Amino acid sequence: VLERLRSRTPRVHCITNAVAQNFTANILLAAGATPSMTISPEEIGAFVASADALLVNLGTFDDERRKAVKIAVEAATRGDVPWVLDPVLIDRAPPRAAFAKELVALKPAAVRLNQAEFAALGGALKNTVVALSGEADRVSDNARTATISNGHALMAKVTAMGCAASALTAACLAVERDPWRAAVSALLMLNIAGEQAAGAGKGPGSFAVAIIDELHRLDRTAILERAKVTS
Amino acid sequence: VLERLRSRTPRVHCITNAVAQNFTANILLAAGATPSMTISPEEIGAFVASADALLVNLGTFDDERRKAVKIAVEAATRGDVPWVLDPVLIDRAPPRAAFAKELVALKPAAVRLNQAEFAALGGALKNTVVALSGEADRVSDNARTATISNGHALMAKVTAMGCAASALTAACLAVERDPWRAAVSALLMLNIAGEQAAGAGKGPGSFAVAIIDELHRLDRTAILERAKVTS
Amino acid sequence: VLERLRSRTPRVHCITNAVAQNFTANILLAAGATPSMTISPEEIGAFVASADALLVNLGTFDDERRKAVKIAVEAATRGDVPWVLDPVLIDRAPPRAAFAKELVALKPAAVRLNQAEFAALGGALKNTVVALSGEADRVSDNARTATISNGHALMAKVTAMGCAASALTAACLAVERDPWRAAVSALLMLNIAGEQAAGAGKGPGSFAVAIIDELHRLDRTAILERAKVTS
Repeated sequence: VLERLRSRTPRVHCITNAVAQNFTANILLAAGATPSMTISPEEIGAFVASADALLVNLGTFDDERRKAVKIAVEAATRGDVPWVLDPVLIDRAPPRAAFAKELVALKPAAVRLNQAEFAALGGALKNTVVALSGEADRVSDNARTATISNGHALMAKVTAMGCAASALTAACLAVERDPWRAAVSALLMLNIAGEQAAGAGKGPGSFAVAIIDELHRLDRTAILERAKVTS
Repeated sequence: VLERLRSRTPRVHCITNAVAQNFTANILLAAGATPSMTISPEEIGAFVASADALLVNLGTFDDERRKAVKIAVEAATRGDVPWVLDPVLIDRAPPRAAFAKELVALKPAAVRLNQAEFAALGGALKNTVVALSGEADRVSDNARTATISNGHALMAKVTAMGCAASALTAACLAVERDPWRAAVSALLMLNIAGEQAAGAGKGPGSFAVAIIDELHRLDRTAILERAKVTS
Repeated sequence: VLERLRSRTPRVHCITNAVAQNFTANILLAAGATPSMTISPEEIGAFVASADALLVNLGTFDDERRKAVKIAVEAATRGDVPWVLDPVLIDRAPPRAAFAKELVALKPAAVRLNQAEFAALGGALKNTVVALSGEADRVSDNARTATISNGHALMAKVTAMGCAASALTAACLAVERDPWRAAVSALLMLNIAGEQAAGAGKGPGSFAVAIIDELHRLDRTAILERAKVTS
């Protein structure tokens, strides 16, 4: 999947929160994808229609972004552009949780979230590929489950790391139409880059920089050698 | 205070400017706190009510944020959540200065600002803890003044460093209810981390990364050894 | 030009996209300029009138920023503040291209853009200084053309690098009123800093940090030794 990312350089349109935009863009570039991020209602339909995948991250939840999300998801559905939902902090805010449930009904190819967010969505996720972040990450659809035991504790000390994982899942969906395989690939890449970035061991500031370097350098050999996936 | 931050991991809700959001979030994480940053009017009341401290930074001054500030400060006052005001650039913009004066009247636990911003607020700060950034930082309330001579010149060459200092002051308020002690602790931590980050001496880009690493690594011993505080 | 930047520390007001704000601010600080970034309609007129240069970047294209742009350009024209237009991604979105054409008619001192954006503006750029990014950068007005062959491939793997080049062009305009010379100087500085940053060779994450360090450290000698400019 990584090699396909690098040879095809898919464009991933991201509706994401203000904290995450810069880091997400650099993670996508490091993996081989091209980010675009407009949320203007006049433009977003055309941007999504010509994109290879879409990320919908609810971390900044304002009127403008909600309108953008509706237009974007409609364009994605019409154009058969796969999309990922990241329902950030819906466990903290009921209006956001309600909006996330509406979005799940519109059939994202995958939903990436943490345990608390998963609990807030309850049974709504039955027919979706779910990528659940935790001490080990777990990716499941109705038939298959993979547990990914790679990663590093410093990943939780860098803001927007989860958002970047969701964006990378969208990028993988652009080149791998089985959403379960795409999500497993994305989390594996980021977690292995995280393990390698932790080597320098200086702290979360330099770790956030090094994980971009390592993702950029990552190749098939490193993934095969280091992957700890059980299914 | 640092040890309490690390053991209690308080949540600090930040209304801050777009330039500062990512750096502020990573500084808070490095110190042991957890950031949240929504400004949606439907949500922010609940986010602040359940937070341990609030930061109100006026660096991005739009309608949306002004509404958010009002709701947030009301929720903080009602819920006894301590809050910090950072009146960014009020010396440049009269409407912003007027808004800052209204906010000072609502009794922030502390106000962090630079000399020009201080001058623009004039006498309005009489009954508030004031953390004044300058060549040496000065923290005063009606009875006590501390002068902190730690820090490094490169701190002025990294955008959002002052905003991060204000966010850290909010984090310290969450675990230390004496706002004067909280502000002294916050500035001391950041300034000592700054001194240690300057060691590598490569320039402002790597300094901004290293100060996050050093803040994450900072402990009681380093603070006691390096603190230059007079009162 | 670099020495004048450092001695005069001009203030550059930037209307730029959310992805680019932090990186742009740190690039300007590293070069010796001071950034300001408000887009509030009540304030932006006064901020621009007292600034030394203005950047108008269309990367985030929302109602708020469009209003801000109109007020800002009017204030710049009235106050004789030189301004730079960066028409990000106008090749992808017709409403943005139409807005960019309106802005070109208002006479920016320079326009910085890539090949696809240039093509979308067609003949509209006849009487403007154009800084065209590509494998080699090219700066032309009606009479002169310079080709700058410095730079490094990693510059294309860091988000907002082009936006930062435009901001730096605005900074140079603040201290060099010949816009062609200002644009050549800006691209030369950033490209040489990029070459020197590539030395460490770790990847795009650390490259984005190192280019800020190198720009901060850059001096006349390094520029004279490394410049590859033909005209």
